[in-house]
Amino acid sequence: MTTRQDAEALDARDPLAPLRTQFSLPEGVIYLDGNSLGVLPAAAAARVSRAVQQEWGEGLIRSWNSAGWVTLPQRVGDKIGRLIGARPGETLAGESTSVNLYKVLAAAILLVKQQGDAARRVIVSERSNFPTDLYIAEGLARQHGFDLQLAEPDQIAAHCNAKLAVLMLTHVNYRTGRMHDMAALTHAARACGALTIWDLAHSAGAVPVDLNGADADFAIGCGYKYLNGGPGAPAFLWVNARHLRTMEREDLWQPLSGWFGHAAPFDFTPHYRPASGITRFACGTPPVLGLTALETGVDTVLAAEPLGGIAALRRKSLALTSLFITLVEERCGGHGLAVVTPRIESERGSQVNLARAEGGCAIVQALTARGVIGDFRAPDILRFGFTPLYTSFTEVWDAVEHLRQVLESGEWRQARFNQKAAVT
Amino acid sequence: MTTRQDAEALDARDPLAPLRTQFSLPEGVIYLDGNSLGVLPAAAAARVSRAVQQEWGEGLIRSWNSAGWVTLPQRVGDKIGRLIGARPGETLAGESTSVNLYKVLAAAILLVKQQGDAARRVIVSERSNFPTDLYIAEGLARQHGFDLQLAEPDQIAAHCNAKLAVLMLTHVNYRTGRMHDMAALTHAARACGALTIWDLAHSAGAVPVDLNGADADFAIGCGYKYLNGGPGAPAFLWVNARHLRTMEREDLWQPLSGWFGHAAPFDFTPHYRPASGITRFACGTPPVLGLTALETGVDTVLAAEPLGGIAALRRKSLALTSLFITLVEERCGGHGLAVVTPRIESERGSQVNLARAEGGCAIVQALTARGVIGDFRAPDILRFGFTPLYTSFTEVWDAVEHLRQVLESGEWRQARFNQKAAVT
Repeated sequence: MTTRQDAEALDARDPLAPLRTQFSLPEGVIYLDGNSLGVLPAAAAARVSRAVQQEWGEGLIRSWNSAGWVTLPQRVGDKIGRLIGARPGETLAGESTSVNLYKVLAAAILLVKQQGDAARRVIVSERSNFPTDLYIAEGLARQHGFDLQLAEPDQIAAHCNAKLAVLMLTHVNYRTGRMHDMAALTHAARACGALTIWDLAHSAGAVPVDLNGADADFAIGCGYKYLNGGPGAPAFLWVNARHLRTMEREDLWQPLSGWFGHAAPFDFTPHYRPASGITRFACGTPPVLGLTALETGVDTVLAAEPLGGIAALRRKSLALTSLFITLVEERCGGHGLAVVTPRIESERGSQVNLARAEGGCAIVQALTARGVIGDFRAPDILRFGFTPLYTSFTEVWDAVEHLRQVLESGEWRQARFNQKAAVT
Repeated sequence: MTTRQDAEALDARDPLAPLRTQFSLPEGVIYLDGNSLGVLPAAAAARVSRAVQQEWGEGLIRSWNSAGWVTLPQRVGDKIGRLIGARPGETLAGESTSVNLYKVLAAAILLVKQQGDAARRVIVSERSNFPTDLYIAEGLARQHGFDLQLAEPDQIAAHCNAKLAVLMLTHVNYRTGRMHDMAALTHAARACGALTIWDLAHSAGAVPVDLNGADADFAIGCGYKYLNGGPGAPAFLWVNARHLRTMEREDLWQPLSGWFGHAAPFDFTPHYRPASGITRFACGTPPVLGLTALETGVDTVLAAEPLGGIAALRRKSLALTSLFITLVEERCGGHGLAVVTPRIESERGSQVNLARAEGGCAIVQALTARGVIGDFRAPDILRFGFTPLYTSFTEVWDAVEHLRQVLESGEWRQARFNQKAAVT
């Protein structure tokens, strides 16, 4: 049996332990929900306050130039790019994941249509992909007369055929914690002439991603999870440079043709002319406060670079999730919990999801009342995220001990834990 | 001739003067650019800091419920709705003006198509409408096979015919400060079977707007101008309830069908089912920090309600712009400045724009160096916005005196004022 002392020993020799001091963690909380909302970087409060009081309050309109507001989407985008295998100038921060997916999926559809093969009209995704991705794809399929097909994870490769236009997947699944083989699936899609879109919501800042290495086509991702960008933080998008060149040559526009994606937005000319490079995927005025907070969050991940970067974060992440799985099995048996997340490390993201036929929401609420914060995903998933930047091995041990006590005491059966949480 | 003492007397009897204490205005600055970026509400720094440190830092994921993050778009939307003649539940805050225009124009196009009249395929706008509106419309016209026609302001009514699908106008023009007659143009468009979209970027919080009174169809607007929401603040949209009902009945989706517009986003079902009411126009996760700052900004405008509200703000706005026009004519004659903004008060927004054949950008820069901040809009517009919440009559007098000195001294001809500003 694994003891709390074993966990403490792992913390004592954890080379990434000093990174935790970058964060303001509330007292008495074990936070296993960084995959939903990352914790507050200690630097963010002062940095956002400076943006509000000095840049906005004092600099006012002048700060568009003097404080660099106008290039925030590119600057923050390039920082994120370092975490996902992008070259400079390929990544743009801004808007929401949903809006960014709309842009890149619409662009992919245009690129496919432009090839002139009318039989290639299928978008394939995973049935348990995060719903907003499916909703956006459903809307675009409706608009463009494409067919959205939802597959089980093991059947995706079988959908790679001459009808496949776009393979749209989330790299790490939000319900199962399962990670796809990006290189292999991208290769399979490409081999049959299709494009790929990768949603990196649960990947960027948590697991190694190499978009150019995989020769992927498009990617999007979320700023408020492992990038610690704050609630509703701006998202990001990445486009393979070859598509940017094709779009320029063929005069293809992404649909949200707003002024920040214009070649000369401050010339105020009446006709749209897309900017070159990734900027053609920009749309509205950048959300300065959100991008500022996001930059401090991304910086907390980049701070791991001298300690081994994403590879080191990945090693610790796997150690954390493996410890959690081991402890749940050792200490919480007989309570109907099933580990949904793959045991095979190469198929695992940075979370562990447990399924339970009933009571999942109430168990998560009972844990929250004890200060152990995970989340519940209807209808039956208890989800625990492990953020190697700030989660300790001892916290993992303590969290499982709380879970054990909640299950054994039956306290989750109390009425106050049995209403459905609106959002957790 | 109007004297500085005359201006001081106007301030002394200004019933709205106390509202200025709501703002943090930098020392030594006369800020006539609230139509581009509103100033910092004094309450915003503490409010945003609370959102960062308590709601995000301490509350973490729990704040989606406990701090009301999940309903911010509707709550802030309804506050804005009070300024534009909307009923509760018709206005939604979030995303950018460009993205919101995309949603409502696409919805308008769907509604027109659904009527089945294939001859009705023209979108009309104003040639000098703000470019991002034209760019978004150009993109949607391309996608849907519609024809975007750009008219001069006096010819808009002449475009109201059986081919007109959508009349898309900005209520107050950013280049001329001219305000359209919303009721009359909406009526003219409707009489020929067309829909209207009003961009309220330079109206909301500055001039009276009555969307329901005009029986308009759609509206959008900007959070960072007269609503004082901060740089790149979330924007807003409004939809006439009859269209929400039609969209529900006919199962028409706005194109950005993201999860926050779903009827049950936290059920995580794979198929899109739009929410009822205005929420069907929501898309991605709400930008919490931006919406929080925007709410403090909107509150500064609502604080005028006990003092007469928008009607009182409008009276002061007209007095400010009239004084500015009078002083420019009295004191800056012979320098090639032409007043572009209408003298007729009912046709004037809350800004005064001057045209000058050359040197406009350098003159604006020379004024900025003296602490008088307006902005320049290529190729020839010097633009001055007057925000009745915080601009005083004495500031107007002093600003014109600086303008006179800049013109008479010729200091704007110095080399340092002659490069083109990237953004002002």
